[in-house]
Amino acid sequence: MRIALNLKGIGYHSRFVHLLRRGGEQRQPAYLKLNPQGLVPALVDGGTVITQSLAIIAYLDERYPQPPLLPTDVKARAYVRSLAQLVACDIHPLNNLRVRQYLATCGRHSEAEWQAWYRHWIQEGFKALEAQLAAHPAADRYCYGNYPTVADICLVPQVYNAHRFNCQLDDYPLLSSIYRHCSVLKAFQEAAPECQLDAS
Amino acid sequence: MRIALNLKGIGYHSRFVHLLRRGGEQRQPAYLKLNPQGLVPALVDGGTVITQSLAIIAYLDERYPQPPLLPTDVKARAYVRSLAQLVACDIHPLNNLRVRQYLATCGRHSEAEWQAWYRHWIQEGFKALEAQLAAHPAADRYCYGNYPTVADICLVPQVYNAHRFNCQLDDYPLLSSIYRHCSVLKAFQEAAPECQLDAS
Repeated sequence: MRIALNLKGIGYHSRFVHLLRRGGEQRQPAYLKLNPQGLVPALVDGGTVITQSLAIIAYLDERYPQPPLLPTDVKARAYVRSLAQLVACDIHPLNNLRVRQYLATCGRHSEAEWQAWYRHWIQEGFKALEAQLAAHPAADRYCYGNYPTVADICLVPQVYNAHRFNCQLDDYPLLSSIYRHCSVLKAFQEAAPECQLDAS
Repeated sequence: MRIALNLKGIGYHSRFVHLLRRGGEQRQPAYLKLNPQGLVPALVDGGTVITQSLAIIAYLDERYPQPPLLPTDVKARAYVRSLAQLVACDIHPLNNLRVRQYLATCGRHSEAEWQAWYRHWIQEGFKALEAQLAAHPAADRYCYGNYPTVADICLVPQVYNAHRFNCQLDDYPLLSSIYRHCSVLKAFQEAAPECQLDAS
């Protein structure tokens, strides 16, 4: 979401919701009023609250069309959306904090088992993404075409996290190349966790 | 995907991919050529293969606009998309077959533990959905407005599965009402698993 706002040059104020502080600030009444699901992120635009990362990004793209985050051709849009969904549906939901907490408490998984789980879904997803990208021409700077799309916005934070979790990424040269190219862009750099005001 | 095709009155041929036959037909070379990820569904339209349910539905909606699967107002579109994403990202990915297989083999989870896991994520998701729907007016026939949208297309199969897994749904009167209303529509009925040619 921050990457999309930066790419479009939309000014915004961040309110940080600490997932591990005070038993999870996302579960406190103040945040639940915004998003009853208690998950981040939520975008507040005037009186409207929008939840779910991909719905927020689609909203920003419709409301502030320049620069676009999807190609114009219908089939290309479908392809780019499918890459974004692959990350958003098949990787991210399995590897986030609430799943980790469930597996640790109810599933009695050790830290090593969590790491194995994390790497398994990263690998499954990245293998599929790499194959998709390899089957389409000229995907070395961005997932598609010559500007960042919603696919890159979804991909880059996952590669960032995979590095943090010491995942081996040698088998994914296209993903790694896209990550490197996006990482030099200001919109991506300024959205990185370590650049946020509350970074500790 | 079948519901979207039916709602739009688009003729199609189904090729059934048996997830449990021959070690998973979705992992056989014939299917991997279509979708390297080895996950269903995939839509083949002429020479184009599109993967990921929500990307397929968005494609169908752009290529065959009538009847629409999203409202026209930008904020309403965002809301409907957020409901669809809540199901597609926060419920479905956690409860599908590949996760069940991983937990059973690598996680040594019993069948009872799988059922508890399944119900946990259904409840988390449905509680959030019910709260979202309750905060918006007149969501008793469909998730939004007076015709089925992508939100209903995502929701109905999840409620169907929750029934199969004996989840208690008394706390979700709006979800249950929407499910009942959609279930009488031919487009939803004909997409139900038991109506498919390969149903056993």
